[in-house]
Amino acid sequence: MNHPATLKDIAERLGVSIATVSRALKDSYEIGIATKIRVMELAKELNYSPNPYASSLRGRVSKTIAVVLPEVADSFFSQAINGIESVAINKGYHVLIYLTHESFEREKAILAEFKSGRVDGILISVSEETSSGHHVQEIIDTGVPVIFFDRVCEDVETSCITTNDYECGLKAAQHLAEQGCNRIAYLCTSPAVHISKKRMDGYRKGLEENNIRFRDSDIVLCGSNLDQNCRTIENLLKRKYHPNGLIASVEKLTTPVYLACKKLGLSIPDDIKLLSFTNLQASLILSPTLTTIAQPAFEMGAAAATQLFKRLDKKKRQPANERIVLESTLMVRESSSVAAR
Amino acid sequence: MNHPATLKDIAERLGVSIATVSRALKDSYEIGIATKIRVMELAKELNYSPNPYASSLRGRVSKTIAVVLPEVADSFFSQAINGIESVAINKGYHVLIYLTHESFEREKAILAEFKSGRVDGILISVSEETSSGHHVQEIIDTGVPVIFFDRVCEDVETSCITTNDYECGLKAAQHLAEQGCNRIAYLCTSPAVHISKKRMDGYRKGLEENNIRFRDSDIVLCGSNLDQNCRTIENLLKRKYHPNGLIASVEKLTTPVYLACKKLGLSIPDDIKLLSFTNLQASLILSPTLTTIAQPAFEMGAAAATQLFKRLDKKKRQPANERIVLESTLMVRESSSVAAR
Repeated sequence: MNHPATLKDIAERLGVSIATVSRALKDSYEIGIATKIRVMELAKELNYSPNPYASSLRGRVSKTIAVVLPEVADSFFSQAINGIESVAINKGYHVLIYLTHESFEREKAILAEFKSGRVDGILISVSEETSSGHHVQEIIDTGVPVIFFDRVCEDVETSCITTNDYECGLKAAQHLAEQGCNRIAYLCTSPAVHISKKRMDGYRKGLEENNIRFRDSDIVLCGSNLDQNCRTIENLLKRKYHPNGLIASVEKLTTPVYLACKKLGLSIPDDIKLLSFTNLQASLILSPTLTTIAQPAFEMGAAAATQLFKRLDKKKRQPANERIVLESTLMVRESSSVAAR
Repeated sequence: MNHPATLKDIAERLGVSIATVSRALKDSYEIGIATKIRVMELAKELNYSPNPYASSLRGRVSKTIAVVLPEVADSFFSQAINGIESVAINKGYHVLIYLTHESFEREKAILAEFKSGRVDGILISVSEETSSGHHVQEIIDTGVPVIFFDRVCEDVETSCITTNDYECGLKAAQHLAEQGCNRIAYLCTSPAVHISKKRMDGYRKGLEENNIRFRDSDIVLCGSNLDQNCRTIENLLKRKYHPNGLIASVEKLTTPVYLACKKLGLSIPDDIKLLSFTNLQASLILSPTLTTIAQPAFEMGAAAATQLFKRLDKKKRQPANERIVLESTLMVRESSSVAAR
């Protein structure tokens, strides 16, 4: 047989109707046990597997959840996926991962696909270009539950799993101030993203609490190209009133800071103290080792999936829109602390 | 309306048959232009989108390809995904990512799902537990094309995109020998995987060519736990006849080597020279910077996707089973070369 075995193939081979085969495979009370056994054995022999699209048309359940993410080349997202899968596997669900590559247009196109019931539920961390959640609301309105994690749309009412971004921004500035920094720059890629704004607000509050003057030029916008980011940071460090503390608010801004300092002959932490938001294992083996604020990535993924399955479990009443905040951890290492060496 | 708009909804609102709506939306010659316009306008207003499962039943085309991977917490796989997507987007296809977490059982379960036509084609890099490709052959037999990239099953006849693993293993041993190493250990996690075997064969050939004696104990098996890997490597470095050169054949074995050397007070590269197979950007900012063999990850992903779309493009004749080998690059940095400092 060159095509996958169908109900019809089984019916023809056994000389029974397609309806009989279908009912036998569903263990229906209408079919006698002898017929059931013949059908099931032949189905196994022919390697029959039900057409998922046909099953979905009947039951409208795909046993599949979608995870929509900006990227996977970031330790936070790859660890969050593991957290999501740890929950989904136990529920017998498939996890499909879709990447937006930080494009709002692509995020919209991916979500539009889900309107027609391709998946049972969605976990999403929005792109850095996403400023409103209208496209997400449209999906929720079709009856497909959506849960946000990490990067949320504030204008959509649904459960969100986030970390304490504001406190972390504050803690980051506070820590560098305590280490003697009096000019602390903040490196970011997408100041408009909600979590980025919260971290930045926390950072500014931290400066204020430590009587450190904030200047607009202390916020430094970087991009996604390594060489360009190196040049941007070199220029920052060559300014007349250059910073002595740096907060890299995104993982990928860590490498260009180290490279720029090396190129300019500046010592971390003697000349510049650095703290990065990252879950990167290599933080431990950089020289100097890297002070980080690490998000509970696995736990956030697992919590988001748990919320989604609560929604999908029809037996339980619709849960309230929960706002779950899991705490990130400041790990002080050599890059921000002379004492840590 | 609480459910997604259906053909029936449109038919009822316009007082026509469902068949008429369906044909109008398909721009059939059987339907008059006035009706077509009314149907299309209402469909747009109601935000109607065709049920993908229903369309698939008719056309058996999902406009979706699956990428089956061991993990995403590895720079090779995350960069390969970007290569795959760069091709798929231009073709108007969705990319679904499935993770096996290096489990053969899970890989089989994921592939079994595809038997029923959920996706149009599959790109796969097999798990480290996978020793034969029977489960892959089963899918190919149902008419769904499968292309291997990086980690292949030699017993399955289909296109494969790999890198020159044997030559890289040889080049790695050769390089360390040239730097003065006369006892070179090889760290791995899954010696049974095809690419691992090829790299290891190359490494052994490299030892032989440089008159370095190979002992079975030079192959050191590690796992996935960081602390355990640190202990394994510490024990290796504390042996009476300990190595002075190390090849980390997998990215995640880099961190434990640096940590073990630090703990034992050994200098890289003075006491131990290290080379890792990795695409990690942080290689540039480790201290010492890391000598790597970097795979052309993006290019391999793009080449695999291109092969798959050649198969899916029915207009072209079935292409031969191509074996495409893209070359990896040795980047000599400080960890293996005193001169590079």
